[in-house]
Amino acid sequence: MSKGSKRLGRASIRFEEPIYILESASVVGNKESEGPLGHLFDQVESDDRVGGATWEEAESNLQKKAVGLALKKAGMEASEVDLMFAGDLLAQSIASSFGLSTFEIPMYGLYGACSTCGESIGLGSMAISAGLAKYVVCVTSSHFASAEKEFRFPLEYGNQRPLSASWTVTGSGAFLLCGQEDVRPGKLPRARVTGLTVGQITDYGLKDSMNMGACMAPAVVSTLERHFQDFGVAPSDYDKIITGDLGKVGQKILIDMMQDRGYDLRGVHTDCGIEIFDGDTQDTHAGGSGCGCCAVTLSAYILRELELGHWQKVLFVPTGALLSKTSFNEGNSVPGIAQAVVLERCD
Amino acid sequence: MSKGSKRLGRASIRFEEPIYILESASVVGNKESEGPLGHLFDQVESDDRVGGATWEEAESNLQKKAVGLALKKAGMEASEVDLMFAGDLLAQSIASSFGLSTFEIPMYGLYGACSTCGESIGLGSMAISAGLAKYVVCVTSSHFASAEKEFRFPLEYGNQRPLSASWTVTGSGAFLLCGQEDVRPGKLPRARVTGLTVGQITDYGLKDSMNMGACMAPAVVSTLERHFQDFGVAPSDYDKIITGDLGKVGQKILIDMMQDRGYDLRGVHTDCGIEIFDGDTQDTHAGGSGCGCCAVTLSAYILRELELGHWQKVLFVPTGALLSKTSFNEGNSVPGIAQAVVLERCD
Repeated sequence: MSKGSKRLGRASIRFEEPIYILESASVVGNKESEGPLGHLFDQVESDDRVGGATWEEAESNLQKKAVGLALKKAGMEASEVDLMFAGDLLAQSIASSFGLSTFEIPMYGLYGACSTCGESIGLGSMAISAGLAKYVVCVTSSHFASAEKEFRFPLEYGNQRPLSASWTVTGSGAFLLCGQEDVRPGKLPRARVTGLTVGQITDYGLKDSMNMGACMAPAVVSTLERHFQDFGVAPSDYDKIITGDLGKVGQKILIDMMQDRGYDLRGVHTDCGIEIFDGDTQDTHAGGSGCGCCAVTLSAYILRELELGHWQKVLFVPTGALLSKTSFNEGNSVPGIAQAVVLERCD
Repeated sequence: MSKGSKRLGRASIRFEEPIYILESASVVGNKESEGPLGHLFDQVESDDRVGGATWEEAESNLQKKAVGLALKKAGMEASEVDLMFAGDLLAQSIASSFGLSTFEIPMYGLYGACSTCGESIGLGSMAISAGLAKYVVCVTSSHFASAEKEFRFPLEYGNQRPLSASWTVTGSGAFLLCGQEDVRPGKLPRARVTGLTVGQITDYGLKDSMNMGACMAPAVVSTLERHFQDFGVAPSDYDKIITGDLGKVGQKILIDMMQDRGYDLRGVHTDCGIEIFDGDTQDTHAGGSGCGCCAVTLSAYILRELELGHWQKVLFVPTGALLSKTSFNEGNSVPGIAQAVVLERCD
């Protein structure tokens, strides 16, 4: 076992030698720039196609820009990065495959639906802890138009969306990770990764792909319960517990279910899907979603709150709805998964 | 850095404390059982739907059976496994999401096309080396009918296939990994994982999804070149270098390209896609492919050859063609990726 980490339970780990988020970047679309976090994002793409010919190419370009920007902010070249963890929502993860090849960085591709941001940071931290890599980039993305095409209806169809539906975020967030010995002198990292609890697939049999918050809430409950037990902590040990992307419907279910289990999340809980849009004025219904939602919210908002000292320690819990249009059309349920990452302020 | 591992280059690692493949299992369909390795597979499913209502459910059931069988062979319960790495070829990896939820094992989902078997064993080894988990299950699958539906044409259409096309293997292979201290007394593991080289996305601009061997061969070249340099080894240091799934067309390209770079793979190279079918009598053209091909060939054939002492040390290099039907129909190329794992005999 690595000297720098301590196994606390089944797939729960504390990094005694923390992993650092050295730098990060967020690139978003127009709608995201008009939301409550709009002024915090690094870059806004006013062209919905992000210079591409298709929605998929647009999403690939978001990933390319986010990684490029994170490297630029860190003053590093792609050739200095050892390993990349990447994922998106599209079939066969093509946003990553086509967006990242020009960097020529060794890569592991991931699929965890909207939980992939947490999965990528978890595995990136582990790769550094295991000694496989010094510098790791973790990147995820989503695009409203490519996701609607992939999961729901053609945009031209103009289908009505129930109030429980979420709005896929157009955006990509990239995170550059390294170990303590590789933090460059004079550079204060954005945050420390000090622990992980890996999520389980949780399936309560819900079948409504227009209410993914409800489908995913039980997965968060499963991960949080194990996390609190394995780490011997309570919700009050965190300044914030931030899921994504339950939205308003899923948040209510989560708080109720956790209350039944003796945990009070009121006050301490928020959700990336709730933070990123103003549901009242932006017509985004339950909130934002997509692999990009957690990623850009983490980069632009959560890490900033840690840097500003508003928060000292947060639990970041991206959640994914594990469905495809094939499984949905075949009448299957929507299982969920939630990947928890402990993030702490760097002093 | 973990005391048990040594970083040899960019995303190349040697596990000084090896990771063990404690047990494994292979479950295949009828056609695979009729091939040259047919007598070696653990279980043959004579029902093409594997008891499911759809091809996707069939593939999910293959994963479920492979994991169940690997655990049974090891005399272990699912509750003793800390972490699972899983993937398949379907959109949003639904074979894994629906096949594995009942095990209630924490999970990271992967996507690396047909390279996913190598990716899962690489990340599983890293998770153990980093101390995140004691016992890890790595599982991948493919199914001829679900893959044809996902990537090509409905089976009922009866399209003609060029001789360069490969035949997706119906099967799933599962591998139970652990560290040295967790090998149970009296149990001789099937093999040791002693090193990794993570692959890069490699895109030569080829666009023929009916000739994936040609699309993937350059990715193998990229991974092998870095592996030989990082580890300071030559092809002759391995008893076999086993890719998957280049097939006969890709094998010829690989050998030629490596020859140009001063490496002679003749004699030492074989390919899971070539080993699993008899192209002359089984009408499988270039060879087998799919996430399941490498996995069942590793479990049934490669690990057995190590156990029998026919081979002492092999380089296992699953290769993936990173396309979707969307990217293909939009006229995009087929990038490849190849993930190398060093496997050694346990004495």
